[in-house]
Amino acid sequence: MSTPAFVPINGPRLLASLQALGQMGALPGGGVNRLALTDADRLGRDWTVARMRELGLRVEVDAIGNIFAHLAGAEDVPPVMMGSHIDTVRTGGLYDGNYGVLAALEVVATLREAGVQTRRPLAVAVFTNEEGARFQPDMMGSLVYVGALPLKEALTTCDAEGLTVQAELQRIGYQGTAPVGLPVVDSFVELHIEQGPVLEREGVQIGVVEGVQGISWTEFTVEGQSNHAGTTPMAMRHDAALVAAQVAVHVRELSARMGGRQLATVGSVRLSPNLVNVIAQKAVFTVDLRNTNGAALAQAEADVQAFALRVAEAEGVRICSRSLARFEPVAFDPSVVDLVERQAQALGCTHQRMPSGAGHDAQMLARVCPSAMIFVPSAGGLSHNVREHTEPDDLLRGAQLLLQVVAELANRTS
Amino acid sequence: MSTPAFVPINGPRLLASLQALGQMGALPGGGVNRLALTDADRLGRDWTVARMRELGLRVEVDAIGNIFAHLAGAEDVPPVMMGSHIDTVRTGGLYDGNYGVLAALEVVATLREAGVQTRRPLAVAVFTNEEGARFQPDMMGSLVYVGALPLKEALTTCDAEGLTVQAELQRIGYQGTAPVGLPVVDSFVELHIEQGPVLEREGVQIGVVEGVQGISWTEFTVEGQSNHAGTTPMAMRHDAALVAAQVAVHVRELSARMGGRQLATVGSVRLSPNLVNVIAQKAVFTVDLRNTNGAALAQAEADVQAFALRVAEAEGVRICSRSLARFEPVAFDPSVVDLVERQAQALGCTHQRMPSGAGHDAQMLARVCPSAMIFVPSAGGLSHNVREHTEPDDLLRGAQLLLQVVAELANRTS
Repeated sequence: MSTPAFVPINGPRLLASLQALGQMGALPGGGVNRLALTDADRLGRDWTVARMRELGLRVEVDAIGNIFAHLAGAEDVPPVMMGSHIDTVRTGGLYDGNYGVLAALEVVATLREAGVQTRRPLAVAVFTNEEGARFQPDMMGSLVYVGALPLKEALTTCDAEGLTVQAELQRIGYQGTAPVGLPVVDSFVELHIEQGPVLEREGVQIGVVEGVQGISWTEFTVEGQSNHAGTTPMAMRHDAALVAAQVAVHVRELSARMGGRQLATVGSVRLSPNLVNVIAQKAVFTVDLRNTNGAALAQAEADVQAFALRVAEAEGVRICSRSLARFEPVAFDPSVVDLVERQAQALGCTHQRMPSGAGHDAQMLARVCPSAMIFVPSAGGLSHNVREHTEPDDLLRGAQLLLQVVAELANRTS
Repeated sequence: MSTPAFVPINGPRLLASLQALGQMGALPGGGVNRLALTDADRLGRDWTVARMRELGLRVEVDAIGNIFAHLAGAEDVPPVMMGSHIDTVRTGGLYDGNYGVLAALEVVATLREAGVQTRRPLAVAVFTNEEGARFQPDMMGSLVYVGALPLKEALTTCDAEGLTVQAELQRIGYQGTAPVGLPVVDSFVELHIEQGPVLEREGVQIGVVEGVQGISWTEFTVEGQSNHAGTTPMAMRHDAALVAAQVAVHVRELSARMGGRQLATVGSVRLSPNLVNVIAQKAVFTVDLRNTNGAALAQAEADVQAFALRVAEAEGVRICSRSLARFEPVAFDPSVVDLVERQAQALGCTHQRMPSGAGHDAQMLARVCPSAMIFVPSAGGLSHNVREHTEPDDLLRGAQLLLQVVAELANRTS
């Protein structure tokens, strides 16, 4: 069987489905609050499962609450899977995650209506708790699916109120009976908004995502000496705030020195006692480092540690650090990335290869099957924000590309 | 009449009085919470006024609650005044302010018991709300006394609960009938703990205070753009936190460049949203600059403003600033400073000239009469702290020096 002739997706239907799912957990002024395993998440899941059934898909839910919808292929072989997540942060938008799920359902609906059956089956996945905004770690459902997080550990995770993932899954009716790790899939493609400003700035329609950059989050705690700002000579100070500031300035210089792919951010600083006329006794601050190159990321981490120790010693303060998160960079499957690029070209889209700056379920799937991602532009680069927006034309273009890519994958004979 | 022969103060009585007053508003684990015009302040005032009456002093209270105790001299001329304050910060110690008041009462008691009458009368002042911890501005009582703050404005000042100075003065029974600005005095001497580490570090017993350094407090507000730390290229960032850090590092360099008398502190930084993986949209931070030289202080202010504007422009963020406090340096009367130094020498104390880093009532009194201050060491430089401590020997040495200085001032024929 060959790749079908061009079958256009139903744009208005996709856009309407994004608005409809956006009603579940909608915030008064716009945006969505659909934290994982809340009543709003149940409403979103119920809506999505109903839509899957409407399309005639077989639905199964596994023990961590991941939802899989299946469309049979001509052969009974592992499916090509698409998908993402529908949980959001507390003040989220309509597109992060939801777009990847609803575009996948639109692809399935379009192919069915056109009477196209692919060689391999197709599957659409909705992974549990990708955001990690209520239960940590993020990407929980896909982590359990690929075997990187034990099911029991995930189920016993508590939120800030002490409620467990298991209790909340049961309460909303989404602890399924399917064993985790199934279905075994042929390949995986996730369509997502960029959540960054690059495509918009470059005026490019499609991001061909080559991988996910590595992430290193470190929290530093500096303990100096609280003293009167008016009576303590400069040479006698042990100023915790100064050390935090020195590191914040340094990481910017470090990223400049290391070049464009090294990102470095000090986004959180807490001083004690945090008063105008008191030298800070304590500073707790974070350093967020990201790089697509694992060795470069490790080098940046070592540089920041060495610098922090050096300035702390010069100021006569104690410093310690702990890792809050650490992920190695992920490279997507070159053949699937090439395929995305080729199909984008065939559709006449402007496109560019790029890394993903944020974490996604696809980086977990990459551990068990050839995977890749497609990005569409985010207006103003905004995400995790009620003003998250992607232009309709960009949404439809991305969905059409997803169809082309998945149809080719599902008809590959290899 | 000449300066009397050496009359030693009663050390145990002074130390006992410090402990006794320290019981008023005592905190469970040590230290004192005697915020201005609270019930604890009333207890402290009642105790102090009772002690004044015990010593046979005439007590008057003015309309802002300043308490003055009078001991007649041989002549009916303006008195030599000593004094300080007895209000504390929320977690204060036994000595800040209280020591200056109680040592002054000990001086009066000692002279009376020795049958010494000075030419000029003596007065002991307790100024209202020096700390400014409940009602701003600080040094309120002495500001009103010297005419630098209108009485009506001071009385209508509210605390955080909306209670006015006037209502609280009346509630605790300390809005007196004496007009503010009286008594007119000949000269003023304030004995105080250093509240800094210099005397202890140098192993010097007495600080001959030449003046109070100028103070400039500025609050900067930086508004950048909140963005994802993992998806926003470094070149596209508008990071408010970075600008705050750059200024904090700069002011330390500035103080090093300007030399020892230029103090510079960034003690407070507040970021929004203050998250590990979000570039800060907003930073509000303070710069505390102090210098004994007014021109140098103004130069430091201009330098910080120019630097802040430059780095804000480079980062593409908006910045604005407002002055939170601004006091020009105060120079104490050279003849009184010389007299303090000479008497310290005569007592065989080690001594050094120094500026005061903190603000004191004496800097207000300096506007209306020859004034000076005497410092004794603070253990570890700690102040505004329940662990504030000065060794008994140092406390007694300072009180004896106060007696010598005041006796000479009160017998001057000039």
